[in-house]
Amino acid sequence: MQIRQIGREKCLELLAELRLGRIACAEAAQPYIVPFYFAYQDSYLYSFSTVGQKIRWMRANPLVCVEADETVSPEDRASVVISGRYEELPDIPDFRRERDLAYALLQRNDIWWEPGYSKTIVQGNERPLVPVYFRIRIVEITGHHAAPDPAQEVSHKISTLEQARKYSLKGILAGLRSELVVK
Amino acid sequence: MQIRQIGREKCLELLAELRLGRIACAEAAQPYIVPFYFAYQDSYLYSFSTVGQKIRWMRANPLVCVEADETVSPEDRASVVISGRYEELPDIPDFRRERDLAYALLQRNDIWWEPGYSKTIVQGNERPLVPVYFRIRIVEITGHHAAPDPAQEVSHKISTLEQARKYSLKGILAGLRSELVVK
Repeated sequence: MQIRQIGREKCLELLAELRLGRIACAEAAQPYIVPFYFAYQDSYLYSFSTVGQKIRWMRANPLVCVEADETVSPEDRASVVISGRYEELPDIPDFRRERDLAYALLQRNDIWWEPGYSKTIVQGNERPLVPVYFRIRIVEITGHHAAPDPAQEVSHKISTLEQARKYSLKGILAGLRSELVVK
Repeated sequence: MQIRQIGREKCLELLAELRLGRIACAEAAQPYIVPFYFAYQDSYLYSFSTVGQKIRWMRANPLVCVEADETVSPEDRASVVISGRYEELPDIPDFRRERDLAYALLQRNDIWWEPGYSKTIVQGNERPLVPVYFRIRIVEITGHHAAPDPAQEVSHKISTLEQARKYSLKGILAGLRSELVVK
């Protein structure tokens, strides 16, 4: 397998096709990740949630990271990683336009109710449905594409040969390099 | 869709079946997520990587979060979220046993070479292959299972009815609640 960086435009194209990602926020030095649905448009990811740990943490610290990926097969995958900022879209006239847009995008992508608006049972109790619209402003975006590599057959061969003991890794690395040079 | 918490034992069972997850680390208040392969055993996730941003950040701040999920369908998914601590397994005699275990687990799960050991091209240059074994000690684990909900038909009906304008949400919530009470 060979992993290559993909450019910004390609990252945004991929993002426009995806709906499910993972969002990480942090409180002090502790990160927290959850899956979330989003709709991308013009440097923003729009989403919707009920109030929980994620929303509380992002209100306190708006620095977030989003990861989304598309897996064709275990050896053919593309992933995008975003550093961004949480922006809440409160139900006040100043945010009417942004909320309209969020609503339209989320509905178009059929992700209105899920999972932000799902009935959530926490410790036997139903969590109150307090809806929160938000968007993530993309500050930085990077992407990678993993695809089969011509050297992979060599890797597997060496992996099998050496599997019993020689995993100090120096041996494998030396072996891999010498085989690659030979090729 | 209804989302329910799942217990610790069920979370660990799910974790034992999964190989691909996402790991988040943080530098100052900025979180960072990447996909990663792991093998679970006895309160630890074992993994392997080359040195990059993730390893540098985890060395500086060992507090991490891991998310892994299994998707049967968009309406039938289970996910696990772990708060944990990064522990590096250096190539010294004191860590021989842990490295042996990591090697055996990662090989058994056929994730030895991917993606930690893949040839990675960054800005046109091949990143040096400096192998790092590590494990994540599970400090806290929670899980959720999302499944179709009997009330979902009601939700969709209201969604359609109200879609044109009434998304102040108060109206939808009131409507949803009254329909649920009627049911």
